[in-house]
Amino acid sequence: MPEIRQNLITRQWVIIATERARRPEDFGKREEKKVVLPSYVPTCPFCPGNEHKTPAETFRISRNGDWQVRVVPNKFAALSGVGARVRSTIGTKRTVTGVGVHEVIIETPDHGMTTALLSDAEVVQILEAYKQRYDSVIRDERVEQVTLFKNHGAAAGTSLEHPHSQLIGTPLTPSQVRDRMEVALRYYDEEGECIFCRTLHEEMDEGTRIVVESEHFAAFTPFAALSPFHIWIFPKRHAASFALIQENEKHDLARVLRQVLRKLYDALDNPDYNYTIRNAPYDAESVKYYHWYLSIVPRVTQIAGFELGSGMFINTALPEDTAEYLRRIEVP
Amino acid sequence: MPEIRQNLITRQWVIIATERARRPEDFGKREEKKVVLPSYVPTCPFCPGNEHKTPAETFRISRNGDWQVRVVPNKFAALSGVGARVRSTIGTKRTVTGVGVHEVIIETPDHGMTTALLSDAEVVQILEAYKQRYDSVIRDERVEQVTLFKNHGAAAGTSLEHPHSQLIGTPLTPSQVRDRMEVALRYYDEEGECIFCRTLHEEMDEGTRIVVESEHFAAFTPFAALSPFHIWIFPKRHAASFALIQENEKHDLARVLRQVLRKLYDALDNPDYNYTIRNAPYDAESVKYYHWYLSIVPRVTQIAGFELGSGMFINTALPEDTAEYLRRIEVP
Repeated sequence: MPEIRQNLITRQWVIIATERARRPEDFGKREEKKVVLPSYVPTCPFCPGNEHKTPAETFRISRNGDWQVRVVPNKFAALSGVGARVRSTIGTKRTVTGVGVHEVIIETPDHGMTTALLSDAEVVQILEAYKQRYDSVIRDERVEQVTLFKNHGAAAGTSLEHPHSQLIGTPLTPSQVRDRMEVALRYYDEEGECIFCRTLHEEMDEGTRIVVESEHFAAFTPFAALSPFHIWIFPKRHAASFALIQENEKHDLARVLRQVLRKLYDALDNPDYNYTIRNAPYDAESVKYYHWYLSIVPRVTQIAGFELGSGMFINTALPEDTAEYLRRIEVP
Repeated sequence: MPEIRQNLITRQWVIIATERARRPEDFGKREEKKVVLPSYVPTCPFCPGNEHKTPAETFRISRNGDWQVRVVPNKFAALSGVGARVRSTIGTKRTVTGVGVHEVIIETPDHGMTTALLSDAEVVQILEAYKQRYDSVIRDERVEQVTLFKNHGAAAGTSLEHPHSQLIGTPLTPSQVRDRMEVALRYYDEEGECIFCRTLHEEMDEGTRIVVESEHFAAFTPFAALSPFHIWIFPKRHAASFALIQENEKHDLARVLRQVLRKLYDALDNPDYNYTIRNAPYDAESVKYYHWYLSIVPRVTQIAGFELGSGMFINTALPEDTAEYLRRIEVP
């Protein structure tokens, strides 16, 4: 019989549809082989030599005079850097002016590279860029929340091949973030502990859903994973915001993230995926009840009417099977 | 400057990204032309003559001995019809046994047909099947919520071409439904009226987002539409559940739904789409604060990392432009 699982952190219910389950190795079969990308594309605005095609750089990490990571404003920004934050509510119509920050983190000069194949040191640089830009953007008084995310491949919503992540600083706290904070707060008040810390300890004790574990982080398939190969990476030290990451943790996270992405790369033949860093808002950085984490969603299945109409999900893979399969894949 | 809008019903914030807005007519341009499907496919389990390939029928509408609409259990059901509903919570792991109902509504005998091109009378039969099956499935004591939805096309999550909708009866009320009931209840208590009725009246007064209006229904692009061509169809008479639809309303809804789908068919060249009926749970059918509706989401854009990581959306079309464009398309 299928099992319906609830993620107590997100409150989402997921049908683990064992009756039509596929084995982890079946998801890796592609109809068409991925194209191998060249290291340099003359028309790509993110390739070295084309720096003049992007808006003026806000951050860079260089080595021997060449940039390794560059951050630039998004040329097609969803939010405007100019103007005041103004709210208005007329009847049922509530608006806020679209001010904020929208930047692109160019992760490597190599057009054909992908995070899974970078070195740990290169991934550290990407995380360093995230942290530096977060710290800078959040100082803008109009910005209430900063979302860091990556879209890899067309099915994950990007048309730009050159490896990049994005940062969006919004002039409000998204209602989903508020809802999750509220759930976590209620759990803390009832149980006396952080629901994320509790989940993490249960996952480490049980072990069946762990994908990679290091000194400071654990990567695992959530008990109620929304989709096949959905993975969460939790810091072991309680902290509500990525911005509080320490130097040694940053190096450790780089290795864990790279290993997880490499396992997915091998298992699913370079899948399209999104990852996002889930953070408390800046003004709640020090709370005991919320805990930041990184969520990875390979785009191997399609969200359909049932998911849209109910907020429930159907997962055709057993999270324990997926985790075991990924654990067995050996990566550098 | 872009504008951020909040949907007070769903609480979702949407960035209306006017800086990178596309005009409504630009969304209709396809890279590859849609394949025209044959009326009959010998291997299709939903085509006439292959009735033995589906599980035993639970409902049919016939004319002159031939079925017009058939309902059958889903052969690859996400939930099992056999067993008891049992809940369990151990630590942070909460489960419910996967019992419930998962059926397929085969909408027409014609494999190559699509709802947009059916007659009003044929769409009435589909709605009649929805209502009959809803009424029957909800009597199963294990079922708490029934979700009716349609996936049209591969980007909307279906691989089966033959026109069909689905019904899933879950042994719990999805948390998203609970959240929306709660928001609506709070609005009712604060403002003394149903937030849906209020929204509907504002939309009809303003008129700029109306797509089709009839005696009993109004179809409009929500003020904070999540994506281009996102459309809501609201009944004018307050009712919390589709199950309370009256005979004359059913005929009226069939015409409005068919006209809206036909406008989308013409505007976007037979787009992939999902629609869902959003209903209060059965035990809340008579509440004054919730209002059922039908939501249509053409799959013209991709959900990406920002949406996954924040629950906010970026819409590159102005809802008022989309509505005006659709209003101008004349359909039978």
